[in-house]
Amino acid sequence: MTYATRLAAVRDSLKQQGLDAFIVPHDDEHLGEYIPPHAERLDWISGFNGSAGAAVVLADKAAIFVDGRYTVQVRHQCDPALFEFRHLVNEPFLDWIAEQLNAGSRVGFDPKLHSRGWHQAAEARLAEQGIALVPLAQNPIDRHWHDRPAPERRPALLLDQEYSGQHSEAKRHRIAETLKAKGVDAQLLTQAEPINWLLNIRGRDIPCLPAVLSFALLHQNGAVQLFADPAKFDELDLAGHCGKDVTLAPMAELEQALATLGANGARVQLDPATANAWSALVLERAGAELVPAEDPCMLPKACKNPVEVHGSRAAHLRDAVAVCRFLAWLDRRLAEPHPELEDEGTLADRLEAFRAELPEFVEPSFSTISALGPNAAMCHYRHSNGTPRQLGQDAIYLVDSGGQYLDGTTDITRTVAVGEPGAEMRKLFTLVLRGHIDLACARFPAGTGGLQLDALARLPLWQQGYNFDHGTGHGVGHFLSVHEGPQRISPKGSMVPLTTGMILSNEPGYYREDAFGIRCENLEVVQPADTDGDIPVFEFENLTWVPFDRRLVDPAWFEPKHVQWLNHYHAQVREKVGPLLAGNDLAWLEQATRPL
Amino acid sequence: MTYATRLAAVRDSLKQQGLDAFIVPHDDEHLGEYIPPHAERLDWISGFNGSAGAAVVLADKAAIFVDGRYTVQVRHQCDPALFEFRHLVNEPFLDWIAEQLNAGSRVGFDPKLHSRGWHQAAEARLAEQGIALVPLAQNPIDRHWHDRPAPERRPALLLDQEYSGQHSEAKRHRIAETLKAKGVDAQLLTQAEPINWLLNIRGRDIPCLPAVLSFALLHQNGAVQLFADPAKFDELDLAGHCGKDVTLAPMAELEQALATLGANGARVQLDPATANAWSALVLERAGAELVPAEDPCMLPKACKNPVEVHGSRAAHLRDAVAVCRFLAWLDRRLAEPHPELEDEGTLADRLEAFRAELPEFVEPSFSTISALGPNAAMCHYRHSNGTPRQLGQDAIYLVDSGGQYLDGTTDITRTVAVGEPGAEMRKLFTLVLRGHIDLACARFPAGTGGLQLDALARLPLWQQGYNFDHGTGHGVGHFLSVHEGPQRISPKGSMVPLTTGMILSNEPGYYREDAFGIRCENLEVVQPADTDGDIPVFEFENLTWVPFDRRLVDPAWFEPKHVQWLNHYHAQVREKVGPLLAGNDLAWLEQATRPL
Repeated sequence: MTYATRLAAVRDSLKQQGLDAFIVPHDDEHLGEYIPPHAERLDWISGFNGSAGAAVVLADKAAIFVDGRYTVQVRHQCDPALFEFRHLVNEPFLDWIAEQLNAGSRVGFDPKLHSRGWHQAAEARLAEQGIALVPLAQNPIDRHWHDRPAPERRPALLLDQEYSGQHSEAKRHRIAETLKAKGVDAQLLTQAEPINWLLNIRGRDIPCLPAVLSFALLHQNGAVQLFADPAKFDELDLAGHCGKDVTLAPMAELEQALATLGANGARVQLDPATANAWSALVLERAGAELVPAEDPCMLPKACKNPVEVHGSRAAHLRDAVAVCRFLAWLDRRLAEPHPELEDEGTLADRLEAFRAELPEFVEPSFSTISALGPNAAMCHYRHSNGTPRQLGQDAIYLVDSGGQYLDGTTDITRTVAVGEPGAEMRKLFTLVLRGHIDLACARFPAGTGGLQLDALARLPLWQQGYNFDHGTGHGVGHFLSVHEGPQRISPKGSMVPLTTGMILSNEPGYYREDAFGIRCENLEVVQPADTDGDIPVFEFENLTWVPFDRRLVDPAWFEPKHVQWLNHYHAQVREKVGPLLAGNDLAWLEQATRPL
Repeated sequence: MTYATRLAAVRDSLKQQGLDAFIVPHDDEHLGEYIPPHAERLDWISGFNGSAGAAVVLADKAAIFVDGRYTVQVRHQCDPALFEFRHLVNEPFLDWIAEQLNAGSRVGFDPKLHSRGWHQAAEARLAEQGIALVPLAQNPIDRHWHDRPAPERRPALLLDQEYSGQHSEAKRHRIAETLKAKGVDAQLLTQAEPINWLLNIRGRDIPCLPAVLSFALLHQNGAVQLFADPAKFDELDLAGHCGKDVTLAPMAELEQALATLGANGARVQLDPATANAWSALVLERAGAELVPAEDPCMLPKACKNPVEVHGSRAAHLRDAVAVCRFLAWLDRRLAEPHPELEDEGTLADRLEAFRAELPEFVEPSFSTISALGPNAAMCHYRHSNGTPRQLGQDAIYLVDSGGQYLDGTTDITRTVAVGEPGAEMRKLFTLVLRGHIDLACARFPAGTGGLQLDALARLPLWQQGYNFDHGTGHGVGHFLSVHEGPQRISPKGSMVPLTTGMILSNEPGYYREDAFGIRCENLEVVQPADTDGDIPVFEFENLTWVPFDRRLVDPAWFEPKHVQWLNHYHAQVREKVGPLLAGNDLAWLEQATRPL
């Protein structure tokens, strides 16, 4: 089927239902960050396979909306004869719809693929123009998508308490108490991560996110109804693992369960930002009272318990072995003939192969960003979207990668010399690393949000008239999503107080278009600090142990404390990772961690 | 009249009007930070004279609500037999009213003394409990307050363009353009500061705030109707100063002007946070369409023009002479017999006397905080509220003061040795000063809000387990209020971007209850910085030139850059202020600015 044929088929469906438009978001019904291949409806209709965006199909035209990361890619992947290209943020698609359609028009949408909050705001926005927003019972794309991939059916995994550190029963009852206190009968959970955390289960439904796609209802008494593909639990004793008050049913039975709650007039809490509009509509129509609130699993999930922190330390140490072996191999490879036989793709594969040798490794935690020279100036570069660039022509290489391990999730970026970096590159690398160090050393009192700390990582760049256009740090899950909230260190960021057990990245960078890119990233866990002062303060405990490239440091741009920090860090790397390396790799580590 | 009699009189009035409660806020009808003596209704009913608070009078009881600054003071000033003491923030008075009264009750309030935004929110809050909020045509306190002071009638001042830097016509037309663009017919201005800024007028209506209390309507064509006491302009040519399209009428005529706008169906913009509820009610009843928006004068007023910045530099240099002479005198006085003959009050008076000798000095910009030893641990200490503490028993003294000059407003805090400060005090002074220096040195790109920079001033304290419980910096007006928005450097603070011409204080501190207090404060103006980088960045230009007490610095708690900064600052102080001092004072300056 060509994209023209696909558009025509969807337009036919719209016409039959008396609709003037249909909205195709990137999301699936769980509204998480990652979606499985069978949910790539935006790709099916348009050919665009980025991680965010939306299309709007009208009777006579269509438009695709993507953000700044994807304005080049969308032009490569989509036919301009079929789609107008628009900016997702600067030209909201609801405004475009309102411009294109007259009062009295009807806009269809699949309520499973949009949040409750979006539905309410969008309905109000279009109503201003006299346009109706119509939830559809079936997605017209699903009707026409005949070669759709089958959903993943690999079995789930019951995560041992040795890894999770807390039994599901304790987690469920702790949150159920908060529901009871608010007079809420049940909490609807719709995202994979909180459900997998709550039940100490994991899965392989989506690449890089080791979770079982599912919905769940957590009742006031702590019981959970889990809605997921039962085949994934065929060989597993879910009730034995979680407790008998956790029951499993196919996803198709969620609707009936919501209707039953509604029929009993239950007060059901859901997060309007993440729960899909469909579930809210089903509940409301059945008579439930909706209680909007943030998902109560998110904060306890973010605050790792001591067993999870212990596991993260161990996972990061193993991960350091893979990254050090890769960097050692890279330096050796550069000294051999024909480095141009390696490219961004073979480098990424080599790094993944080192990780794959490690015990408890499950899969990468995201698609490796392996970027040479000017490609590194694109923060979200993917070598697989074009011809990978070859070694041998650039001065520096940026590699941002991570692993999912049974005991933790890693995420590390190193920028290393692969040629002859000049003074300007070394200056900027040193300023970026200095910002990383200043944030890593920060202590802060209870109540401090990431927004308040973000400037620490930027200040060395700001002082010289530079900046970077992304957040400084994101939350990281425990053998779950490499991106999690609510904690975040960013100028747009969150005022959620940073507290014990939260894992965050510390990743300032610098990007010069068409020239080069730099990023220095470790993960850190928030811990209480020991001081002689009046008030308790927190500090960051470092988790990542891989040398920063000394060849890129120009000490003229450091203060003495940064030199001390780096030398101390490298001494710790040598002490921790040295015993796990041998031969050439150990020799590499020893020279890479020499004091400045 | 005793307070019991006053309460009884107000209760009689309530009964006659069928009211169950009456709310007495601290504010006057302009809802600014300062109020004149004839508007001190909260003091009249309760005896409490702090700068914020509210009382609620019921038929059989009353309560007074104050914030953390005033919990001690209110117990000294108010009779517990007449008033319950409650916390303004933790126990909102609307919640207390809702607890005390039954559904069907009627709560009276003076709509001139509450904002439009408060009225809307309070009405909704009380309606939840079935309680009606009733705007009163006359304030019952005014009916019974027989010995009420007369309003200030000192003449206004027409501020020359030599000081203001921009003619009123230019200011008015610039803002009128923004109204026209939004289809707004008129802007209602209700606070003294924006009106005085817009018309380049000043006055003496309130101590420390050199403004004429007034209301104004700015029309789409740039014309202004000013509502103020015409007697204050008797000898002045307002139209000649501002332009013929600025007309003056008594405040009592505001109601008719609002009604006329309403009758014409005008769209009238006002700031619900600062415009009183009465003006909104008058407009609405008359048929106007209200457009809620932030006061459009606030941002241009905050961004001082080059003439205002030039004036501020000059005012600060003169002010430095007064503060240096005071500190020099203090050191000499301490070396003389009987220092205990001086107390916090005589010290404050002496400092004010030095300022009063200066050209272009008008008045203090706020009541001097002159605090010895443990008194300095109270951030808003006023020596006039009790017996001033005497010199001779404490190690350090904190003095926070400022002046209103025709060419600018100053605000400076110095903490100085008046005894034998120990290692702990010197450590904490050095950490506070280090935070001051780190913030003073910061550069930042366009779009950076004060909230993002606040941590810089706290980090040296945070690292050692200390903090301070107030904002780091407030905006400062130009020969206007020493506190202005929208700029602010604070953890609760504003994301309004800091930009060229904004003047801010930089005043980290440390307070140890019952022991001592430290604060280091200079004013700074935001300016573009010169770098070799990619992007424009701003920096702070220092305005305040008075030595920080070297005797309190323990260099062990500084990094080399802080020593350099302080030595450089002191060299500049010597260079700038030295030529303005003589004799003993100059000798003092020379030793006070020696390199560390």
